[in-house]
Amino acid sequence: QGILERLDAGEIVIGDGGFVFALEKRGYVKAGPWTPEATVEHPEAVRQLHREFLRAGSNVLQTFTFYASEDKLENRGNYVAEKISCQKVNEAACDIAREVANEGDALVAGGVSQTPSYLSCKDKTEVKAAFRKQLDVFMKKNVDFLIAEYFEHVEEAVWAVEVLKESGKPVAATMCIGPEGDMHGVSPGQCAVQLVKAGASIVGVNCHFDPEISLETVKLMKEGLQAAKLKAHLMSQPLAFHTPDCGKQGFIDLPEFPFGLEPRIVTRWDIQKYARKAYDLGVRFIGGCCGFEPYHIRAIAEELAPERGFLPEASEKHGSWGDNLSMHTKPWVRARARKEYWENLKPASGRPYCPSMSKPDGWGVTKGAKELMQQKEATTEQQLKELFQKQK
Amino acid sequence: QGILERLDAGEIVIGDGGFVFALEKRGYVKAGPWTPEATVEHPEAVRQLHREFLRAGSNVLQTFTFYASEDKLENRGNYVAEKISCQKVNEAACDIAREVANEGDALVAGGVSQTPSYLSCKDKTEVKAAFRKQLDVFMKKNVDFLIAEYFEHVEEAVWAVEVLKESGKPVAATMCIGPEGDMHGVSPGQCAVQLVKAGASIVGVNCHFDPEISLETVKLMKEGLQAAKLKAHLMSQPLAFHTPDCGKQGFIDLPEFPFGLEPRIVTRWDIQKYARKAYDLGVRFIGGCCGFEPYHIRAIAEELAPERGFLPEASEKHGSWGDNLSMHTKPWVRARARKEYWENLKPASGRPYCPSMSKPDGWGVTKGAKELMQQKEATTEQQLKELFQKQK
Amino acid sequence: QGILERLDAGEIVIGDGGFVFALEKRGYVKAGPWTPEATVEHPEAVRQLHREFLRAGSNVLQTFTFYASEDKLENRGNYVAEKISCQKVNEAACDIAREVANEGDALVAGGVSQTPSYLSCKDKTEVKAAFRKQLDVFMKKNVDFLIAEYFEHVEEAVWAVEVLKESGKPVAATMCIGPEGDMHGVSPGQCAVQLVKAGASIVGVNCHFDPEISLETVKLMKEGLQAAKLKAHLMSQPLAFHTPDCGKQGFIDLPEFPFGLEPRIVTRWDIQKYARKAYDLGVRFIGGCCGFEPYHIRAIAEELAPERGFLPEASEKHGSWGDNLSMHTKPWVRARARKEYWENLKPASGRPYCPSMSKPDGWGVTKGAKELMQQKEATTEQQLKELFQKQK
Amino acid sequence: QGILERLDAGEIVIGDGGFVFALEKRGYVKAGPWTPEATVEHPEAVRQLHREFLRAGSNVLQTFTFYASEDKLENRGNYVAEKISCQKVNEAACDIAREVANEGDALVAGGVSQTPSYLSCKDKTEVKAAFRKQLDVFMKKNVDFLIAEYFEHVEEAVWAVEVLKESGKPVAATMCIGPEGDMHGVSPGQCAVQLVKAGASIVGVNCHFDPEISLETVKLMKEGLQAAKLKAHLMSQPLAFHTPDCGKQGFIDLPEFPFGLEPRIVTRWDIQKYARKAYDLGVRFIGGCCGFEPYHIRAIAEELAPERGFLPEASEKHGSWGDNLSMHTKPWVRARARKEYWENLKPASGRPYCPSMSKPDGWGVTKGAKELMQQKEATTEQQLKELFQKQK
Repeated sequence: QGILERLDAGEIVIGDGGFVFALEKRGYVKAGPWTPEATVEHPEAVRQLHREFLRAGSNVLQTFTFYASEDKLENRGNYVAEKISCQKVNEAACDIAREVANEGDALVAGGVSQTPSYLSCKDKTEVKAAFRKQLDVFMKKNVDFLIAEYFEHVEEAVWAVEVLKESGKPVAATMCIGPEGDMHGVSPGQCAVQLVKAGASIVGVNCHFDPEISLETVKLMKEGLQAAKLKAHLMSQPLAFHTPDCGKQGFIDLPEFPFGLEPRIVTRWDIQKYARKAYDLGVRFIGGCCGFEPYHIRAIAEELAPERGFLPEASEKHGSWGDNLSMHTKPWVRARARKEYWENLKPASGRPYCPSMSKPDGWGVTKGAKELMQQKEATTEQQLKELFQKQK
Repeated sequence: QGILERLDAGEIVIGDGGFVFALEKRGYVKAGPWTPEATVEHPEAVRQLHREFLRAGSNVLQTFTFYASEDKLENRGNYVAEKISCQKVNEAACDIAREVANEGDALVAGGVSQTPSYLSCKDKTEVKAAFRKQLDVFMKKNVDFLIAEYFEHVEEAVWAVEVLKESGKPVAATMCIGPEGDMHGVSPGQCAVQLVKAGASIVGVNCHFDPEISLETVKLMKEGLQAAKLKAHLMSQPLAFHTPDCGKQGFIDLPEFPFGLEPRIVTRWDIQKYARKAYDLGVRFIGGCCGFEPYHIRAIAEELAPERGFLPEASEKHGSWGDNLSMHTKPWVRARARKEYWENLKPASGRPYCPSMSKPDGWGVTKGAKELMQQKEATTEQQLKELFQKQK
Repeated sequence: QGILERLDAGEIVIGDGGFVFALEKRGYVKAGPWTPEATVEHPEAVRQLHREFLRAGSNVLQTFTFYASEDKLENRGNYVAEKISCQKVNEAACDIAREVANEGDALVAGGVSQTPSYLSCKDKTEVKAAFRKQLDVFMKKNVDFLIAEYFEHVEEAVWAVEVLKESGKPVAATMCIGPEGDMHGVSPGQCAVQLVKAGASIVGVNCHFDPEISLETVKLMKEGLQAAKLKAHLMSQPLAFHTPDCGKQGFIDLPEFPFGLEPRIVTRWDIQKYARKAYDLGVRFIGGCCGFEPYHIRAIAEELAPERGFLPEASEKHGSWGDNLSMHTKPWVRARARKEYWENLKPASGRPYCPSMSKPDGWGVTKGAKELMQQKEATTEQQLKELFQKQK
Repeated sequence: QGILERLDAGEIVIGDGGFVFALEKRGYVKAGPWTPEATVEHPEAVRQLHREFLRAGSNVLQTFTFYASEDKLENRGNYVAEKISCQKVNEAACDIAREVANEGDALVAGGVSQTPSYLSCKDKTEVKAAFRKQLDVFMKKNVDFLIAEYFEHVEEAVWAVEVLKESGKPVAATMCIGPEGDMHGVSPGQCAVQLVKAGASIVGVNCHFDPEISLETVKLMKEGLQAAKLKAHLMSQPLAFHTPDCGKQGFIDLPEFPFGLEPRIVTRWDIQKYARKAYDLGVRFIGGCCGFEPYHIRAIAEELAPERGFLPEASEKHGSWGDNLSMHTKPWVRARARKEYWENLKPASGRPYCPSMSKPDGWGVTKGAKELMQQKEATTEQQLKELFQKQK
């Protein structure tokens, strides 16, 4: 059954987690470029991660094609040991995802994301061409549906949806925005309306913010659609990091990004709360993004098992709410084998010399950054300014 | 070259990370029993984790035989889908480790750990028989050397070393203790002396405490050996969790164990400090235990690259001290591309409603636990008391 | 010169700090009733506190007549050792304030605050009668001007201003509200407009929120007045406690109120930031409320000394930005003798087992509270419900 | 009844709080010099503080003669508006203390503290002469007993006790040390032994550390005396600041000292725990030092009211364990009117951008301090070095 059949029937569809962060920790993706050449270089690592998400309960395996547009790969090409073509990266991603999807009951979704072409002010035709190039591969490999994700500007997201719709396949679209809206100041509600009008059947958010903030944003999208009398399925794939302190551009601006985020990692119990809250809000495509590990996806599947009627395969290796601690030799560890305990635990950081929140960096915020900027060449700076001009 | 040749020549040997925690998050190990039946059930998952550690720089691949003694597997056997024999688990572990070791320059170490037989007061003969059963497999599979690890009681560790020495292969021994010593109150210095006298060529600590506390303990071991005029190589494989607040039995007693430890996870920069400090203390077998992911092991290899003269394979996908951020479009993110930044960062937890330290649970500490205990059957309690009597 | 002459001339007028909290710590006021019978029982203690504020730089001494309306004193009368009449409390307060004001250059302001009569739904005539009774004393004792302060409902505040205006003396009015507005949902801007229309020459906020939130509220008041093309002087007298985590009713609902607020106490440097920010916003009557001690008021006077051209008397005993540490024997303490140090210090709480923020209590929030409530008599409950009905 | 009659009879004697910190906040003492010229300049302020401690339950009023030795006053003399003689300061202190003591049931204790003469290596005769000068005033004014307090070096404390014993009056002696002992490395147990041998009838600690650490130190003193088969009454007057993170020299080295200590201030409930713990340890002279306000002293008196049989006067204005909140209009505030609530509250700091612990400054710790030091003149440095040489 296709994605829309499932959602239309009221099923809960569980997404997967973010590949770039998970594979960075495993040694296959470089933080900074965040490109997915591992599909060609180390297919076994990508395959294994897909498999773990499948076992954890994912109903959708996204092709590992994040930042795999030709312009991006070229832009960051120097990071790849041997130059690998955009087509090969995308094709390998499709093959691996399909191979694992066939091991269970999962759909394959081809994914595109924001492009350097848009950020450097290339025109609509050029930006669309980049998406179309990826779409050609997805059609050739016959993915089940398509996702346009990680867009900071609704204009570019709309262009992506328009291209993906040419395929005739269902299209989902998520933006990496918070309640304040996109980088041009378009509200979440308006973003949702534009995306649905462009042809998306599923809309929502991914990345940049924690589960709680992401659901606030999805709520605003839902209200925007209701006000415009439009219908669409809702989707959320947030970070697995707590970010109550971030600004408009999310976790990128936090001083801990990307190499000091550990103390912010959410627990499985945080995810169970998120899954329940998402469900109560009417979100039916529930997954994750950066920071999500397989056990976080399993937590979604376990929380919603009563509604779905079954547990994921990986729950063989997990007791609900810690109940497998009930045989521990120490009574105080046995006392942890219950829902009430984990639900109410306020976990300590073990870092008494660290604060609990950070001030996000940004223009005008960090003098240090500005000074550093002045040491760089003017030409690069000019380009930068143009980019940021666009963002305001 | 064997482990002792390397260490005797002054080489730094990098260990791997803890399998039970890493594979629990991936969906293949159950927290509570913590047994390694995945070697038979899902060899591809175990193989992939070995491979990631190898790429990250590990020179030693430990067979995934933690808690794989026959008494333990039987004790926890109900958790395994189909009953799998102790021998099969251990054999598969050896085969997988060897297969991956052959992909690079790594040694295979067969590992044994503390047994329920000892804790339930079985006699020396019976406990030794359990170790010997595992050793038989290691000999058959011809591992390169042997590690006795995760012992809370030096008495049992000594018995393990005595058995392993029968093989003629080099033996390393680590205890999961802190500066206060073992559960019978034997000091770290005394533990080290007893282990070396029993035949261990390498001694140190693993698990239960964070890198800083673990190195304090190793320092006490070193001093104990010096005072006794004994020689041995030093080894440390600590947690990748900050535990400044734990008591004598380490992180087990922290309220966050094992499902709320996320905010305590150490960063790669914490690990670089640990690697340097371990090196300066004279430790030459430097690895990790629970919480260590491949990127933590890579951090050891990168910190000690100047001494070793090379980087691990996975450093292809990692810039030293974040230098790959230098091309980021935002100047304040570019400003993070330097050692001084990451070295001094005090990462926030994003959890303002949580404390930074916890009081460890324990006898007499948690009324709640005591009450819960009273609701359990007396017979179980009797057994428990005997165990704990032993521990005091 | 009167208050309006000073403000009209562009002078900065410095208020005093909150008496009930300061005198509670000194042993003369009971937390809970918070009534000012100390003016009769222990005039020397009240006099000394006035004197300390005067020395610290206060230009206005408020009569200690908080909660000194007849209905309040009767309501809480059981707390006073011997029944003291409302008139005596108010008269003594005026006499003490005037005595100390004459020791320096300060004005005496007679103050009224919200009444139980209003909260229990008495009509306008009755509520106004309570204010008029206090006003009679203020007129007899010839205070310099009048302050209506600590109102949660703008309706009652307007009634108070109307009564006070009958005197012909200048009237200031402050509400204990945050950016969300009063308990009936009237916005800060609207509150300010209504108060000015009722006759207040000075408007602003006091109590309930920390300096930062209070200034946000004053900013909204300023914008409301501008939009309505009304003119008034601005005033702020916030808490000296950090309350980033409080809800609509401010610090009352924080679990720490009123006996565990210590870790929230602001430093003198926090106050210097507040004074500067208030000044920049156009506030010219700058003082404090609960938690302010004389040294906090001194910090306002020191921060604004460049604008005012003089330091307060108590600065004899205070070096600017810690410069009196420059003679310390330890070099690292000497290194603290500079503005940059104190301005950037992030002071530790010394409480690693405590969180940095709390969830405020409230209806529907604390199950415990609800259960406790159910144990109380229904009659009391009925009265309570009526009060709270009014508050919604 | 004299101090020894009371203690010998098993009575609990309650001390007072630290004057220099309390009066600094009130505007009468300068941080840095910390000298008590206020006894002459502003006797009303000193009198009022004495009175508040008396009302709160103090049985001992210490003359405000801290750092009032002639050498200290001269050293810091430039801070005093008009030069006031050492004799006048000490005499006024005695007169004020006696005047207030006569208002209730309190003893007057004349106090001496460590001298610059000792720190700059003057000989025993000269140092003793400084103490004797103060003692002459105490004898003339006929104080009830004597306290030698705030000594970092037991050698100087012994000299002080020897001088004070010449008077024939009972002598108490407290050192500002932690469990690591004095600045020459003499253990707390040894310090106590030396002080008792020199003639002190009461020994203990004051200042520099929080209540918990201070009681650990007193415990070591108690054990030292028991081992030496010596008898003495025990005394503790700790800080009212949490200092779990300080080093050997206590709160002086914390980065927050002295102007950013607010988040460390202890609550009244912390003090009740301290009072109970002190009592259980056998301490019978229980008071406070820097940071103690009258309500902290009241908390000691309230906690020990069952043992003493009465409440202090100021308890008229205080409900036990918050019971005066039971009439609050909000049920969730009423729910705070109970011991269990306040005993278990973990109060938030309201400072999410601040850590919970600090690293103490010190030699070799702060590069910044060292650099600053190098900018100072060599001559001053030479003197400094000599001082610190002595301290090692």
